[in-house]
Amino acid sequence: MNESIPREVDDIVRSAAAASALLARTEDITRAMWLRAIAGSLDARSGELVRIADEETALRIPRLTGELARTTAQLRQFADVIEEGSYLEATIDHPNPAATPPVPDLRRVLRPIGPVAVFAASNFPFAFSIAGGDTASALAVGCPVVVKAHPGHPRTSDVTAQIVTESLRESGAPEGTFAMVSGFDAGLSLVDHAGIRAVAFTGSVRGGRALIDRIAARPEPIPFYGELGSLNPVVVTAAADAEQGADLAAGLAASFQLGVGQFCTKPGVVLVPHDSALERELPRHLAAQQRMLTSGIADGFTTGSERVRGVSGVEMMSSATSGDSDGTSSMVAMTDVATLRVNTDSLLEEVFGPFTLLVRYRDEAELDVALSLLPGSLTATLHSSPGEDVAALVHRLEPLAGRLLFGGWPTGVAVSWAQQHGGPWPSTNTQFTSVGATAVRRFQRPVAFQDAPDAVLPAALREENPLRIPRRVDGVPITP
Amino acid sequence: MNESIPREVDDIVRSAAAASALLARTEDITRAMWLRAIAGSLDARSGELVRIADEETALRIPRLTGELARTTAQLRQFADVIEEGSYLEATIDHPNPAATPPVPDLRRVLRPIGPVAVFAASNFPFAFSIAGGDTASALAVGCPVVVKAHPGHPRTSDVTAQIVTESLRESGAPEGTFAMVSGFDAGLSLVDHAGIRAVAFTGSVRGGRALIDRIAARPEPIPFYGELGSLNPVVVTAAADAEQGADLAAGLAASFQLGVGQFCTKPGVVLVPHDSALERELPRHLAAQQRMLTSGIADGFTTGSERVRGVSGVEMMSSATSGDSDGTSSMVAMTDVATLRVNTDSLLEEVFGPFTLLVRYRDEAELDVALSLLPGSLTATLHSSPGEDVAALVHRLEPLAGRLLFGGWPTGVAVSWAQQHGGPWPSTNTQFTSVGATAVRRFQRPVAFQDAPDAVLPAALREENPLRIPRRVDGVPITP
Repeated sequence: MNESIPREVDDIVRSAAAASALLARTEDITRAMWLRAIAGSLDARSGELVRIADEETALRIPRLTGELARTTAQLRQFADVIEEGSYLEATIDHPNPAATPPVPDLRRVLRPIGPVAVFAASNFPFAFSIAGGDTASALAVGCPVVVKAHPGHPRTSDVTAQIVTESLRESGAPEGTFAMVSGFDAGLSLVDHAGIRAVAFTGSVRGGRALIDRIAARPEPIPFYGELGSLNPVVVTAAADAEQGADLAAGLAASFQLGVGQFCTKPGVVLVPHDSALERELPRHLAAQQRMLTSGIADGFTTGSERVRGVSGVEMMSSATSGDSDGTSSMVAMTDVATLRVNTDSLLEEVFGPFTLLVRYRDEAELDVALSLLPGSLTATLHSSPGEDVAALVHRLEPLAGRLLFGGWPTGVAVSWAQQHGGPWPSTNTQFTSVGATAVRRFQRPVAFQDAPDAVLPAALREENPLRIPRRVDGVPITP
Repeated sequence: MNESIPREVDDIVRSAAAASALLARTEDITRAMWLRAIAGSLDARSGELVRIADEETALRIPRLTGELARTTAQLRQFADVIEEGSYLEATIDHPNPAATPPVPDLRRVLRPIGPVAVFAASNFPFAFSIAGGDTASALAVGCPVVVKAHPGHPRTSDVTAQIVTESLRESGAPEGTFAMVSGFDAGLSLVDHAGIRAVAFTGSVRGGRALIDRIAARPEPIPFYGELGSLNPVVVTAAADAEQGADLAAGLAASFQLGVGQFCTKPGVVLVPHDSALERELPRHLAAQQRMLTSGIADGFTTGSERVRGVSGVEMMSSATSGDSDGTSSMVAMTDVATLRVNTDSLLEEVFGPFTLLVRYRDEAELDVALSLLPGSLTATLHSSPGEDVAALVHRLEPLAGRLLFGGWPTGVAVSWAQQHGGPWPSTNTQFTSVGATAVRRFQRPVAFQDAPDAVLPAALREENPLRIPRRVDGVPITP
């Protein structure tokens, strides 16, 4: 993978902009076919892709095989979503001269926003990378995509991009529908380019902030969809600990060590009662860890866990060290609410990797204090006993996250209609999701047609509903 | 109206933040009742409100009476919208262990984002001010509102705020649900305050950019919904001019002079064939204008029209001057595409007030060049002859605006389900509308509940659908 130079980036974005006008006129069934073609081609070369990705990321064959299956399932799901048609939010108001003010014939639909820059993630070489959810959802709604590859898996990126490009070409998609660029500077050139109409980014809070500032400096600001850092708090009630402490220890250990802890949904802070069974049982579930995704990520893990270890009032436990020279250890820090309160910044900055922080609370008042210190997250999880009244706790947790779990663990993000992968800052900066059916809404903008002749209307808005899609007509949802 | 000091702003936002948690648990029917109570109280004091507003804005009794009626109709419409329930986007996925990856029980709903800062507009002392669309849509979904009053109509603002506050109190809304602040510094304090979760602004591009920069400097960025400047291009085909030139001249004159041209949807640039009937007929429809909203706006109008007049290759026509000492003249500038091309910045910066620019094109190629120079707008209007094939023109216009009109004029914005009041930068910075039913989406954020017991779910997501609202269940839209 060679770094793209500014001239190349400019050519690529111009080509995407030219494709944009053509894509805006394609039918949903056409783009659905493209997505399924990409999925089929990726599946057909699964063995090769997984092998290369494992060489580059050490994420292991089973996980990578699953991740690729998730990626192609996701492409097919977005094909289903656009064929279903609700994503267009087609809305028709027939004229109503009696309204205040009078209503003309008004018809509103969501249209593609234009070329999208996608920044691939380090930790999902398939599902959040070249042909991942951002790319799939932007292509689905008719936006050309330029992906900035992550340097952590360059060969995986190259081969995937090749497969996507060929599939699109063979399916008849316009030149410029998809392209990949490489290198830090190429990423900045993308964000600065007038032809780019939206940016989707998965990465660090610092990286996301830098892009936000860069976008703010453009003559024309554009939407930025950042999936950034997340602590994913877990609350364990005293009753839950008493009943299920041993199981919770095993579940927590499995979740925070999954994929060497390199998940945006890793549980990074766990509020537990003092003297919990969970804490007592946890050590035996800690395991030596394989190498991390990149040396930069490994360095960040060391720096972050040392920062926490250095706080007075924090104890640490850790797994054995891997025999592997570049392997690492799992680490758990333990502290109390008083220490958390005076060291909030040091203790609540995300440590990306196999690390979690147990915060021991003595009573509900202390639990409440701990909750008040937490920043926004993608998820928040509650473990309680079936009989407990948790309404007040749920009201406390809801403002903290985009997804609330009752039991279970936050790692593992289903791709479905009701999924929400996005939460208050610093987890994301948006009111949308980056996973699940409604992820497409990030790349659409509304257009209303007033008193338009039927012939010039997009098919979704024609009176006879030729696409047979769900619409709202004169305020009433109508499913054909 | 006294300027609010920082301490007052802080108290007000803290009170709004406290109310936020309570509002998030109110029922839709409760907030609908609040909105209707506000509407009723405003209607009951219509005479007084209109009189005060006319003294402050010179917008005249008929227009202001209509605007207040629109404002109270809008409050009632948002009440209807939340009672209908689709605005919650309630979505339920039942567990599907066979999916890749497996789907747990997932239920997604839109929740209030938290306290909203609303910046009132100068040009709509009712409909885009204290109790206008931004306030109504934020309250509708359960967000407390702090409005920054516009200094152009301080007494109108004071009385309206009093009415809103009393109506809410009498309806049982929590303290902190609504407040008004005044003064430039108070506005900045609002935008900086950690308790504010979104900002809605109607005003100049420059003002909007300043707030965007201010928000980018917050530790936690928040959504900014700016309704900024808009040229609202109109295209008149040769056939339309030949058939309807005289009527088009009358229609254009009425639209660009309406309310002394002080509308965000004023047609500010009109692409006409060379030697058009429209241009020949226009002078006799130009009328002397009353005073503008504020002396600052009047100065801006003078500066802007002088800037255009100073461009070589531009001719001007204007109305008689009003006898009124602080009245003004309507002005029309005329130029050709070649001049537009080399003076784009000078000629295509919005001139707020009774001004429009006619650009004469010789053929389709020149029309195409002119279109390529236009920035984004709230609206774009096409006047063509019934027989013409306008498909290519529509494809050219669509990327330029949020609302496309076929015949008619862009001033006059209906409040309905399909309305779209928002377009590409610099008209707005969002993918949402600030007028119409979906304006509420700006102040909502999605939350998904995973494997939650029915009892802790919001009513909208409970299995039995106690609210009887439209929902998507396992991918299928279901209307009760």
